[in-house]
Amino acid sequence: MVIKPATSKGTRDFSSKEIARRNYLKSVLQATFERFSFQPIETPSFERLETLMGQYGEEGDRLIFKILNSGEKVKNADLTAFHAAAYQKFSKSLSDKALRYDLTVPFARYVSQHRNDLAFPFRRYQIQPVWRADRPQHGRFQEFFQCDADIVGDRSLWQEVEMLLLYETVFDALGLNGITLKINHRKILAGIARLIGAESQLIAFTVALDKLDKIGQEGVVKELQTKGFSQEALAKLSPLFELEGSASTKLVALEALFIDNAVGMEGIQELRFILQQIEQYNFKSASVELDLTLARGLHYYTGMIVEVAAPEEVKMGSIGGGGRYDDLTSTFGLKNMSGIGVSFGFERIYLVLETLGLFPDDIDKSTQVLMVNFGADTAAISFEWVMKLRSQGVSCEFYPSDAKLKKQLGYANQKNIPLVVLLGSEEIERKEFVIKDMRSGEQSTHALTDLASVILNKTARA
Amino acid sequence: MVIKPATSKGTRDFSSKEIARRNYLKSVLQATFERFSFQPIETPSFERLETLMGQYGEEGDRLIFKILNSGEKVKNADLTAFHAAAYQKFSKSLSDKALRYDLTVPFARYVSQHRNDLAFPFRRYQIQPVWRADRPQHGRFQEFFQCDADIVGDRSLWQEVEMLLLYETVFDALGLNGITLKINHRKILAGIARLIGAESQLIAFTVALDKLDKIGQEGVVKELQTKGFSQEALAKLSPLFELEGSASTKLVALEALFIDNAVGMEGIQELRFILQQIEQYNFKSASVELDLTLARGLHYYTGMIVEVAAPEEVKMGSIGGGGRYDDLTSTFGLKNMSGIGVSFGFERIYLVLETLGLFPDDIDKSTQVLMVNFGADTAAISFEWVMKLRSQGVSCEFYPSDAKLKKQLGYANQKNIPLVVLLGSEEIERKEFVIKDMRSGEQSTHALTDLASVILNKTARA
Repeated sequence: MVIKPATSKGTRDFSSKEIARRNYLKSVLQATFERFSFQPIETPSFERLETLMGQYGEEGDRLIFKILNSGEKVKNADLTAFHAAAYQKFSKSLSDKALRYDLTVPFARYVSQHRNDLAFPFRRYQIQPVWRADRPQHGRFQEFFQCDADIVGDRSLWQEVEMLLLYETVFDALGLNGITLKINHRKILAGIARLIGAESQLIAFTVALDKLDKIGQEGVVKELQTKGFSQEALAKLSPLFELEGSASTKLVALEALFIDNAVGMEGIQELRFILQQIEQYNFKSASVELDLTLARGLHYYTGMIVEVAAPEEVKMGSIGGGGRYDDLTSTFGLKNMSGIGVSFGFERIYLVLETLGLFPDDIDKSTQVLMVNFGADTAAISFEWVMKLRSQGVSCEFYPSDAKLKKQLGYANQKNIPLVVLLGSEEIERKEFVIKDMRSGEQSTHALTDLASVILNKTARA
Repeated sequence: MVIKPATSKGTRDFSSKEIARRNYLKSVLQATFERFSFQPIETPSFERLETLMGQYGEEGDRLIFKILNSGEKVKNADLTAFHAAAYQKFSKSLSDKALRYDLTVPFARYVSQHRNDLAFPFRRYQIQPVWRADRPQHGRFQEFFQCDADIVGDRSLWQEVEMLLLYETVFDALGLNGITLKINHRKILAGIARLIGAESQLIAFTVALDKLDKIGQEGVVKELQTKGFSQEALAKLSPLFELEGSASTKLVALEALFIDNAVGMEGIQELRFILQQIEQYNFKSASVELDLTLARGLHYYTGMIVEVAAPEEVKMGSIGGGGRYDDLTSTFGLKNMSGIGVSFGFERIYLVLETLGLFPDDIDKSTQVLMVNFGADTAAISFEWVMKLRSQGVSCEFYPSDAKLKKQLGYANQKNIPLVVLLGSEEIERKEFVIKDMRSGEQSTHALTDLASVILNKTARA
């Protein structure tokens, strides 16, 4: 039986060209993280089911890829659940582990598990694939990379400052300009909720606000109405949507409204400190903008929140985000671990760099030289030169058979190999070699003893 | 509810130290592959179930991690199979994809799927994790890295030569000496089977021979007896186990036995060519040994086979292997694609390097400098220097709060940070800074303008 060669839906093969680009992006991230003293960790592709389930809400639970128990263990299938059409329960009875859904929960598990071996504040980064059972569609995959940097174990606002500088430094290193870092503060959102008399509905408020991009101001107002927010509250809210000007102008306006509003004032003070430090630095790639409507849906944020907008011309939306949290690890029994984390949307940043033509040309590590094969009489000598070039760091290939020259040159063309060396019996006799530049078509003859130096001169990577 | 923070059995977290070492090994492999003109590819973590099932034998099938279908799709559970205790069949009805079990089948699928976009001979390498539902035990994991290099689309024996040189070059680059490359040829095994009148039982013969390491010569003979090999055949076999001397001596002895044995003679001629070319090169790390009892179990090998033995002192056994195959991709409808592939046992090579202390010291990318925090008056200035050092490529960290100096120095010690910079208000006033070398305990004062140059001088990585 012939099996159809096809990838599973929602997954991708990567060619060497794509890998070179992905590795370039990864290496810029890694190098910047390491200068900022973040250390890499890696966690396993799958975690115990109980580590993951219930951490991402009902929708998240459904999108977790469960791994079927092996062998006879499927005996424990919960048929009662099956017959009751309780498929989620049935599935759970067949699985005790699942593929990583994000990097945050495995990180919280890691910190909790290794707490006695870590120096706090603990600064880590992690770049690994995650898996989600989303319906595959254009640009959305079931396997994709995430990239997170976190600092846990301290409340210092210098870490907020560092994270904004980290974004700027990474995007600047990538040559990506026109980035916007939208920031806000959960305590300011709490202050606003208090201001409009909806303190007890802070979660409903942030959940609705988080949809502003998608459903617009009107949509948010509608959703808040259905959640029971009064007309009066909503009337107080609307001017806040329309505050304009610089971050400090907005903070002054807000301060005037936050009389006797301690929580809101705390948020203002924290953002003021952060913005004041940031101003000392000359941002080339990013600009920082206070966006009072920025909510970020995740329940665990407690302080500054940030979202990264791609340059407007690429229509990509958010390419990163994060914020301060206070209690990420308590699920795993480790309390009072304040931290701050930011993520870089690896796959989207890749697309932005591709769209804007920002991948450097010299990251391609493909073959530089093809040595033509003129048959048994000369092959051993030609191959010896191939090995000499390799030992000098040149990516070099020996055509495996003495096919016609036209075929061998065609192969070089198909693979975009820029240089071809011809070393036939005549050349060997004259102690010469011929080099053909496939880009210009130029051909020249040199002394055989100069072969390595001529090649090294002609290749960018020497 | 507090969840116990624990990894799933058989999986590992990697610390930054381990990652630095794994990345070093990976980078040496990558750099060598690329000089040899192998191009990287990556395939998805999971494949369609039909791509994987049946490719690894019955035992392999059981060890494949199946991914449970999502949501309502589990409705299609085959309860008839369940009630008949046909659990393998039941499992298949619940899953349509599975985690990669090795890199060979995904590679064959890749070549078949992308055949129209590839230049042949196609040279690829791949370093990715694979997953197996093996019972976890010391040194055996359910998630581990594999590393393969293959050339498909040509039968030239120069590729056998290249692969042996590839092993030598990689192990030499790793500083690993005392490697043995055991080689043999499937056609020589076929010749031997013919010699002992067991031509039709070649597979039973190689399967038994493959166990030589584990069960010894006596065990192999016993197994062959139960498979119906005659006393006469076994009597003819035993001198072959005892052939001694160099590869060429062994081949001469074998040649004398292979009269009218065309298949066996072909094997001899091929190995002679390969060995003759190899002799031109000065192997520093590996020695090549003809092992007529080497069989390698995998059914698809048809030509030279190779197995890499670790240096004897580390008792690690095989750390790699491979061989020539003729029909790897026909399962996916692509016929007559001869190829050769070798694998590097990533996890075992890691252990060998660790055991022998061969990881270089300078691969650690952890923090080089801690900037002490003396509180609000000086923090902004100190932090500015942190950012300046980072922009010079120094891995530098700012202690987030003005904790007692003792605590901050303790943190530097715990993290093995070699250099600490003290920049208090007095130092700032005098335009000086103090640097403390945590390894020697030495402390010195310098002009503040020299901060970056002093640090760059003191750090290995400048």
